[in-house]
Amino acid sequence: MSEETSIGYRYKIVFIRHGQSEWNRTNRFTGWMDVDLTEDGVAEARQAGKLLRTANYHFDAAVTSRLKRAIKTMHFVLEEMDQLWIPEYKSWQLNERHYGALQGRNKAETAQLFGDEQVRIWRRSYDIAPPALEKEDTMFPGHDPRYADIPTEQLPATESLKDTEKRVIAYWEESLVPKIKQGLCLLVAAHGNSLRALVKHIDQISADKIMSLEIPTGVPLVYEFTADLKPVRSYYLQDTK
Amino acid sequence: MSEETSIGYRYKIVFIRHGQSEWNRTNRFTGWMDVDLTEDGVAEARQAGKLLRTANYHFDAAVTSRLKRAIKTMHFVLEEMDQLWIPEYKSWQLNERHYGALQGRNKAETAQLFGDEQVRIWRRSYDIAPPALEKEDTMFPGHDPRYADIPTEQLPATESLKDTEKRVIAYWEESLVPKIKQGLCLLVAAHGNSLRALVKHIDQISADKIMSLEIPTGVPLVYEFTADLKPVRSYYLQDTK
Repeated sequence: MSEETSIGYRYKIVFIRHGQSEWNRTNRFTGWMDVDLTEDGVAEARQAGKLLRTANYHFDAAVTSRLKRAIKTMHFVLEEMDQLWIPEYKSWQLNERHYGALQGRNKAETAQLFGDEQVRIWRRSYDIAPPALEKEDTMFPGHDPRYADIPTEQLPATESLKDTEKRVIAYWEESLVPKIKQGLCLLVAAHGNSLRALVKHIDQISADKIMSLEIPTGVPLVYEFTADLKPVRSYYLQDTK
Repeated sequence: MSEETSIGYRYKIVFIRHGQSEWNRTNRFTGWMDVDLTEDGVAEARQAGKLLRTANYHFDAAVTSRLKRAIKTMHFVLEEMDQLWIPEYKSWQLNERHYGALQGRNKAETAQLFGDEQVRIWRRSYDIAPPALEKEDTMFPGHDPRYADIPTEQLPATESLKDTEKRVIAYWEESLVPKIKQGLCLLVAAHGNSLRALVKHIDQISADKIMSLEIPTGVPLVYEFTADLKPVRSYYLQDTK
């Protein structure tokens, strides 16, 4: 827990969106594809760790997805904070939104193929999912050993943000809320859409407003809560130099 | 689990001693001091990961100590294997032998201060511990937040190898054996003396023979077991190119 105290909050946690990935750079739909951080992405994560260390944060546990761009972001942050020794948990429920059959495709090519308007709908509507992967497709997560512990029927073949929100919030309620209420200060390293879903739930943001919320990569997002987990305030931890 | 099969074993796990650390190089007593890997140490860990990947190992979980040289070795191995997503556990019981008041001292200076013979006894006897840290000493682990979850009376102020063995074997029996018997193939990334203690227990090596056993850094040490956890054989995974 940070040394900082302010009136009105009981718990504090920190979200961080992973730094730039290889496919952010090449403008492809990533979703559950397990692409690595770029050098810039590594630098973003290390810089976030330095900021958190300077601000005297001490985490009790760290949680992330099963995708390396988030896992490595978590590790670089913790390394810079000299807190690699804390417990860490990796949940598929914090994974990025599953982008179905669009995963791996270049965004410009996809727009040529399906039309700009259709792609805009898939990207910007709350409850419309892109075309699903076939269950036989080797890209379907049911064939991936990293999800072997998850019942196949729970694994997505595509997702709208609404679908992503459902599994993210289930994890929030079942796994994170109990830890927060134990008094644990958590670092949550995740993805643009899994964090968007969390923020929507915590701040009770409407479906039409959430799609325009952009969480920047590699910047710690601090949330303070009351004892009954109502948000008191949230802010980005920025370099003030 | 590796694809390799041979008659007579049911379970397989892999030990790895962390790569070279800063203080291995400067010849200081390290123990629980949390020194980092050198560049050579990082390269050793990555090379071990490449070997394990080539040999088609798939781990179900990874366990390590609360010291960064072992944690980072584990992360580099898993990164090279593309298995960063598996569960990981960090236990103080896999930490290096606690070297008491000698920690941080240069080995040559210590020999000048206490005499070569005394230092040889501390380093090479099974059940004689170096001088203990005072409980008030800031270096005593009871003052370190990373051990805040451990009752102070369980934390060492110094250890003989016999003392190290006791807490390592307790962890083996309570935490690792149940996982192995569930069929999980484990990666255990630890330290010269915590691994020596494990090997002594598994292979039932005598106290006077164990002190001359040197486990090389950064080389995967494979153990195969019968269904009732008797060791069938053990071997180092070497680069055969």
